[in-house]
This record gives sequence, structure tokens and C-alpha cells, in this order.
Amino acid sequence: MTKLNTDQSVLDFIYEPVHRQLEAVEDKLRSLSNQEHSALEGLLAHTSLIPGKRVRPAITLLAGRTQQGSEELLVTMGAAMELLHVSSLIHDDMVDHASLRRGRATVNSLWDNNIAVMFGDYMFAVSAVHVCDTGNVRVVRRFAETIMELSTGQILESFSAFNANCSLDQYNDRIYNKTATLFRTAAESGAILSGAPESTVQLFVEYGRNLGMAFQIIDDILDFEGIEEEVGKPVGLDLIEGKVTLPTLLLMERYPQDNSIDALFKGKNREANHKRVLEMLRNSSVLSDSYAVAGEFCDQAKRTLLQLPDTRERRSMMELASYVLERRR
Amino acid sequence: MTKLNTDQSVLDFIYEPVHRQLEAVEDKLRSLSNQEHSALEGLLAHTSLIPGKRVRPAITLLAGRTQQGSEELLVTMGAAMELLHVSSLIHDDMVDHASLRRGRATVNSLWDNNIAVMFGDYMFAVSAVHVCDTGNVRVVRRFAETIMELSTGQILESFSAFNANCSLDQYNDRIYNKTATLFRTAAESGAILSGAPESTVQLFVEYGRNLGMAFQIIDDILDFEGIEEEVGKPVGLDLIEGKVTLPTLLLMERYPQDNSIDALFKGKNREANHKRVLEMLRNSSVLSDSYAVAGEFCDQAKRTLLQLPDTRERRSMMELASYVLERRR
Repeated sequence: MTKLNTDQSVLDFIYEPVHRQLEAVEDKLRSLSNQEHSALEGLLAHTSLIPGKRVRPAITLLAGRTQQGSEELLVTMGAAMELLHVSSLIHDDMVDHASLRRGRATVNSLWDNNIAVMFGDYMFAVSAVHVCDTGNVRVVRRFAETIMELSTGQILESFSAFNANCSLDQYNDRIYNKTATLFRTAAESGAILSGAPESTVQLFVEYGRNLGMAFQIIDDILDFEGIEEEVGKPVGLDLIEGKVTLPTLLLMERYPQDNSIDALFKGKNREANHKRVLEMLRNSSVLSDSYAVAGEFCDQAKRTLLQLPDTRERRSMMELASYVLERRR
Repeated sequence: MTKLNTDQSVLDFIYEPVHRQLEAVEDKLRSLSNQEHSALEGLLAHTSLIPGKRVRPAITLLAGRTQQGSEELLVTMGAAMELLHVSSLIHDDMVDHASLRRGRATVNSLWDNNIAVMFGDYMFAVSAVHVCDTGNVRVVRRFAETIMELSTGQILESFSAFNANCSLDQYNDRIYNKTATLFRTAAESGAILSGAPESTVQLFVEYGRNLGMAFQIIDDILDFEGIEEEVGKPVGLDLIEGKVTLPTLLLMERYPQDNSIDALFKGKNREANHKRVLEMLRNSSVLSDSYAVAGEFCDQAKRTLLQLPDTRERRSMMELASYVLERRR
């Protein structure tokens, strides 16, 4: 069995309490491609068939079910969460000139950049219409704020590219915006739609935020791990793209006299400096230190849940936090 | 006095009944640039200072004031309408590689395509947050559907580029999606937010839709008028970009044996065929026939209003329909 399948079987186990509702989310995603405009049909069929871990809808469903929320509302919101995630990926892939996503060709590579921009907009709107179907203005507003934060995260990343001067606060701000906001909204909306009291809603806000922070830090660590041939992309791609992430931040803190990263970002001896930074990373503890930081976020997420009654759904949310830390992709 | 200023003074006259509320919309737009992230500040300052005709917020305000709607709600919605318009222009300009808009440099030319995509997303979300501030889920849903339709219009236009086989129905569908939906939503939301009865809301839907159809047809006619040096862009740019619009549709209908447009779209003797099509347009009645079609849409918009009490705001909406037909830019 490949690692990929192991990951999926772990997720299947975690998702067990909301298995049926996740199927309903899948049905909603598949039904999108029935469209009056044939131009859109092909795009929708391509996109709705892209497989994914469905972490965000699972969070909405699990959070909502801890509060005995209405299945119908939660399924609608779960679909909206996945659609929002997919929409943002369509634009991200275009911006990054990515040709593959989840093993399938991206919209920008199969069609072109212009179609990717316009179809991404379309999908943002489709996800928004789903959120409106919940009839809850607070959730719709949080959803719109999430899109603001996602794009802020991307803009911050773009403006700070190839700049080695980055503080931990700036990094945390950036990954909250680009990733954690969506996890937060997934959990928060599930709680709001289930009529949870405000103090409980805030617990889910904290759970989602901490889980999302950990998720992105693990992503940033995985970028430095593996072998190019196995992971299908250059090791240390973030460095090549001028992105300062937690491991490089810690490295610069540890070796304030070394200017390899700065030199790399300035385009000096690119290959040699890239190799040198990767070596320094391997010969230091910054990757395991970064894991420890992600671990703290996951622990914080779990501690928040301890204030809720012990249910199957709560246990799954705990296990999801462990999964986020241990996942290999 | 230039034509441009004449246009503005006509609009000032039309907007008179909601003059104060339009000022409040401007204040809202200007206040956006106070931002915690300096990366966004420059983008917001640039965008919020772009002048515009403010037709869409004026429609929302006028429609709402015919129904004695709350000024605060209408101003918020008016700002959202202008912001949605601006957001869609940011992506349109990127897709069209446009360097100027309303006499100012575009986001894609001042920054780059990637920033234009992400900042356009941000602005879509900012406009959505404003709509959420109205607290009305029906309006928010209509707003999300509008973004779906706007992007559908752009996708349809892109997929049909350089294809001379286009029916009038397809053209009408395309311009409803790309332009008229926003006019419709501007009028519809003003009525909904003012608590108008459903039959009245539907009158505003029809008014906005017809006005928007006329607006786009006039745009498509203006593309063929003027002299390159005066209008600041090639005459017949739509043809160069492979767009079939009403004048060319009517021309093909009138001269079914002539294949200049088809040949032009296939890249044969580009310059000669472009010149030939422009000559045929000038020597035929298709431009005035297109005006007549736009005129019918405007008349329909006005007829719809006759079912409402005669107020200053209704008179302004009538005059706006005349302006749309007579405007020169």
C-alpha cells in the first residue's frame, strides 16, 4: 500500500462520524456540472472531479455535529467550504504557473490564464451562493471576510517575495491569512449554523485557527523534505520562489552571520546557494524545531476541544489535529 | 467645454435627488485605503481614487429612494455596487492586457498580472462584505449570482472569440451576463432593501436589465465610432479582438454572401479585411439600426417605470435611460 493510500485510510477512519454527510457533499460537488452553458460544463466537470482530502468540509461537519446541527445546513456549508478552497487553488495555480494539482492538470494549463481567472471568479461566486443557501448572514459575512483574508495572504506573499527580512510575526500573519482563515471559517461556520452559544463558537474559531496554522507550517516543512523524483517537485521550491517560511526563518535566526539566503534571493550563485541552504537545514535542528512549533499549534487546538463534551465527533477532531501533524503530503 | 464635461454635467443633473447619498458612497470608497497592511494600502489608494460615472450606485440609490428606503442601507449597497464593478474591471483589464482605464494606469500595468488577480479577488470580497452589512440574505444571494453571471459573460466571450457563427440570442445572453446583470442587481437591490412589494421589485429588475442591455449595445456601437486619435484606441477594436457584437451581427445578416468577418477572424489579410468591414459598416444602416435596438431596450426600461408613482427619483431614472442612449463614452 502506498503512503498516499495510508493517508486516505487514516482520514476515512477520522471522518467516520460524518461519513454519510461527506458523501452528500460529494453529490453536491458532482451535481454542479449540469449547466446550461456548455462552455462552463467542461470546466465544471474537470474541477468537480478533482479528488481532495476534503479536510475543510469534514471540519464543518464535525464541528456542527458536536452541536447537533442540521445535516442539511452543514452539508451545504461543507460544499461551500470545499468550493471556496478549489476556487482559491484555481487562482493560486494560475499565479504560480502550476501545471499539476492533486495529480491532475490545472485549469491554467488545460485552458489558459484568462479562463483560469474568470472561472476562478465563477467558482468563488458558486461557493458564495451555497453559503447564501444557509440563510445565515453572519456566516455569509465571515465567508466574505475569509476571501479577503485569503487574497491578502497571497498579496503579502507576493510583495514579500525575495526579501529575506521577515519577522516571525509577519510569517504568522501571512499563514493565518493564506491558510488558517479557511480552517477557522470551516469550524466557526459549523458551530454558528448549529446554534452553538457564542463561547462555544469561539472555541471552534480557536480550534480551526490553530489547526490551520499547523497545517501550513507542515506544508512549509514538507517543502524541504523528500527527494525530487519522489515528491514530483524540486526540494526547497519555496526558496526558489523567494518565500521565507518557518524553517528558513529559524535558520536565519540561528546563523545570523550567514547570508546564503539573502544572496540566493538576490540571484547570486543561485544553485550553489540553494544547495548550501538545504545542507544547512539538514545539518541543523530547524526542521524538527519547526515540527515542534506546528505541534504546539496542534496541542492548542486539542486543548480547546477539551472544553467540549466528549463525543465521537470531538474525538475525530482531536485525531484530525494529530493527522495534520503526521501527514506526509 | 469638452464632451466629457458635458456628459458629467448631464449626470450631475440626473443624480440631483441622490446627490448627498452619492457623496456618502464616495466617502465610503475613499475610507477603504486606511488599511493595516501597507501592501494593500497602495493598491486601495490607487483604486479608490479612480473616477467613474457612478451609474450603478446611482441606480441603487434612485431605485431605493422611490420606495423611501433607508439612506444608510442604500449608501452601503451603492458602495458595494461600485466596488463590484471596479473588481470586475481589475480582472477584465488583466485578461484584456489593458494598460489604461478611465484615463489611469490599470493594476496589471502598474503592478503585474498576479497582483491584479489577487487584488481583484480582494476587492470582490470587500464588496461582498459591504453587501453583508445590509443584513439582507436575499440581496447577498443576488449579489453572488451577479458575480456568477459576470464571470459567465466573460467566459462566454472568451470561448466565442474569433467565431463568426453567433446568433442574436447568444449575443443577448452574453451581454446580459457581462453587463446587464449588474444594472439589474443595482436596481433590484435598491428596491429589496427598501422593502418594496415583490411586484415592484420585479419592475426594477426589468428596468435594470433593459437599461444594462442598452448600455452594452451602445458600448458596442461606440467601438465602431470616432477617430483613433480622438478615442485613444483603434476603431473596431472588438473586431480585432474577435468579438462579434450587434453591428457585426446585423452586417452578417444583411450580407450573408460576404465573408470578410469570417476571413478576418481566420487571420486572412487582416488589415485589408478589417478596413473593408469598417467601410461596409459605414456604408450600411447597421449602426443606426443597432441604435434603434438599444433605443427599444431604453423605451422598455422607461415603460416599466411608468407603473410607479411620478417622483423626482423616477424622473431621474427616466433621464438616465435617455442618457445611456445618448452618451458618447
